[in-house]
Amino acid sequence: MMDLAPLDGLLLDHRTKGIPGGTPPFPLGAIGVKQWNVLREDMTLPVAVLKDLALAHNGAWMRRFLDASGAAIAPHGKTTMSPQLFARQLADGAWAMTLATIQQVQVARDFGVDRIVLANQLVGRQAIRYVVSELKRDPGFEFYCLVDAAANVAALAAAAREAGLDRPLQVLLEGGYPGGRTGCRDLEAALDVARAVKQAAPVLALRGVEGFEGLFHGATTAETAGQVARFLDFLVEIAITASQQDLFAPGRLLLSAGGSAFYDMVAKRFAAAGIDREVMVLTRSGCYLTHDSVLYREAFADLVARSPELAQLGPGLQPALEVWAYVQSWPEPGKVLLTMGKRDVSYDELPVPLSWCRPGDARPRVIDDGHVVTGLNDQHCHMTVPAGSPLRVGDMVGFGVSHPCLTFDKWPVLYIVDDDYTVTGAVRTFF
Amino acid sequence: MMDLAPLDGLLLDHRTKGIPGGTPPFPLGAIGVKQWNVLREDMTLPVAVLKDLALAHNGAWMRRFLDASGAAIAPHGKTTMSPQLFARQLADGAWAMTLATIQQVQVARDFGVDRIVLANQLVGRQAIRYVVSELKRDPGFEFYCLVDAAANVAALAAAAREAGLDRPLQVLLEGGYPGGRTGCRDLEAALDVARAVKQAAPVLALRGVEGFEGLFHGATTAETAGQVARFLDFLVEIAITASQQDLFAPGRLLLSAGGSAFYDMVAKRFAAAGIDREVMVLTRSGCYLTHDSVLYREAFADLVARSPELAQLGPGLQPALEVWAYVQSWPEPGKVLLTMGKRDVSYDELPVPLSWCRPGDARPRVIDDGHVVTGLNDQHCHMTVPAGSPLRVGDMVGFGVSHPCLTFDKWPVLYIVDDDYTVTGAVRTFF
Repeated sequence: MMDLAPLDGLLLDHRTKGIPGGTPPFPLGAIGVKQWNVLREDMTLPVAVLKDLALAHNGAWMRRFLDASGAAIAPHGKTTMSPQLFARQLADGAWAMTLATIQQVQVARDFGVDRIVLANQLVGRQAIRYVVSELKRDPGFEFYCLVDAAANVAALAAAAREAGLDRPLQVLLEGGYPGGRTGCRDLEAALDVARAVKQAAPVLALRGVEGFEGLFHGATTAETAGQVARFLDFLVEIAITASQQDLFAPGRLLLSAGGSAFYDMVAKRFAAAGIDREVMVLTRSGCYLTHDSVLYREAFADLVARSPELAQLGPGLQPALEVWAYVQSWPEPGKVLLTMGKRDVSYDELPVPLSWCRPGDARPRVIDDGHVVTGLNDQHCHMTVPAGSPLRVGDMVGFGVSHPCLTFDKWPVLYIVDDDYTVTGAVRTFF
Repeated sequence: MMDLAPLDGLLLDHRTKGIPGGTPPFPLGAIGVKQWNVLREDMTLPVAVLKDLALAHNGAWMRRFLDASGAAIAPHGKTTMSPQLFARQLADGAWAMTLATIQQVQVARDFGVDRIVLANQLVGRQAIRYVVSELKRDPGFEFYCLVDAAANVAALAAAAREAGLDRPLQVLLEGGYPGGRTGCRDLEAALDVARAVKQAAPVLALRGVEGFEGLFHGATTAETAGQVARFLDFLVEIAITASQQDLFAPGRLLLSAGGSAFYDMVAKRFAAAGIDREVMVLTRSGCYLTHDSVLYREAFADLVARSPELAQLGPGLQPALEVWAYVQSWPEPGKVLLTMGKRDVSYDELPVPLSWCRPGDARPRVIDDGHVVTGLNDQHCHMTVPAGSPLRVGDMVGFGVSHPCLTFDKWPVLYIVDDDYTVTGAVRTFF
């Protein structure tokens, strides 16, 4: 059970982006009382907001997807690193949280997350020591990490033995592919690692097979999907063979893959794995909750095109994350600069303007397609504007982002807003 | 006078990257007592460290440069956003801090920075209100911001009048160039804005001329330098003409330009401006203090090639900032993955491995040139390794970064280390 009370009591002040200068420190949990409205210029810009209705919509959509597919989810917490959003995801039925680093695990543990998948090998003296000591300290803590090398298996086993751990450290065998990221490149390498885990019983237990398919980039959508499909086949092959060779620990088998772009394929392929034992299919999307306006917008369109039955789940994911900035300068025809930069939004792809607002307006106005972001510096956004653009210095523009993970990490606090952009809450992140 | 006592008392715990799991909260100012050593694996990786001797060396080098050139500096605080490093720069003789956003101004004010150059137009209701109220509240606060549009001049004047400010809001006229960032594109536009400021006396005062030359990118170093030189000529032309037309407020004139790549040219050109009144040449490098291993390493080599007299100042700037990560996986010949990604280092250019260390080593070892970073994901670094590379899973690699600004913002706390990588202090950042 997560404990968010310390965050409600966390004092915010004007050192945090968004909080107006001179505001006396106040508890985060009381921010809604202030009735700050972004469009009314009650906050400083740039400011990052999460639209509450879109978050709720996306959470409900994912629940319906999981109900329909039979898969479970351990959302990747690295996306938001916000315990308050973790709690929302767990309340929505998430089975566990996925995390990428030991610091992320430490944060999640502090706020009471009791089931964690570390989607990496556990390496380093302090990281191994911490996990083993947490497992020893708290019998309610359930932990899984990946293995792709016998040397790492040996290091984990030695640490578990040395600590006198009275239950196994649970691991998932990672499959990879040539040129990819981590994970065993072929079946033989994977089985070698699985055998090393089995030999390390009872201090280690092999609970399943894992892979990450999110980095394939074929020349076409179809080619990418083909690469993903072959990789999922490989993961299933590892699982079947290791099962036939009795390399898994007793109990339910975990088959896990799925970032935020291909979880439909993962759920279908793993559900049809044909392994003669109980299997849990575990997806790990981190980005479904906030979605975005560029990368995952496109990925979701591909997903629905590929799996048209998902249209039955109702309207699809909606972008919940926006960053608002002022027009700061209009120094030459056709170009404005805004108060937002690489310190404020992801820039693997550029952000897109969604709407604008003049001080005094109660609602955002439509911004036409001629407004295009052309570049970002650390603290500036360069935007082309069409002839006749209504914008002026001091107007506000709301942007959709290209990638939630690399936007969240630029905001210690993001603000929850209703559809009128009135702040109803705030979430703290830990990066 | 800056007050850093609140930072010494700030409690750190294992939610902060680098702090080992389970460490009871402790005050930042007491971190040296722990005698943590990075190479001895006392901390979690990735970890960002600042080499104390390199910081001191760079601070002293810049002092010698300023003494030799006659210029002053208002270091751009956006680079580090660390009040502790601001204090170091002010103690080294910096005339003011430069900042980019109102949140950055708020942070600097909280820790007692009393002279600030906001290197942007001041826009937005809360931003204008805060600055005017701070100027009213604290007679010791000295503030400058940029103007490039008469409409913004009018907004500032109205706010100052409405608040009953009893001293002028001081502004610098910003010159720009076609296709560039903010700033007036031609002399007539600049003089129009200057006249608007003069008409707004006594609530506004035009104190000087400013520009930013750091975004020129010619096909060759020489072409870029030529573009910078012409732009500096333009800024001088604005200053001379505005002075002839008596558009500046009485008193010393500020001429300010200079990011971290061309401050030699700025100091020389502005010193020879030939304006018939007292002039202060104000440079604004943010990156000299930590320097880096890619972008500014190259820029500094160009600077010394262009201004060979700087060799007399002694050995040049040294990279002070490193990020250390573990080898996490070696899944195929020639390739390793490390525990570091876009969440940990700048990625406008990729980081470069500088040295490595095996657990148990007391000192880093040389890493050969065949080790090359080929890509970064959010939490992973892809690195090519040569045949025969000594690295193993669990070894540590120290990286130099491409760009300090976009590395600092990924670390709430960076650790000051001595030459043996023992932690002697820590600095908090506010992004």
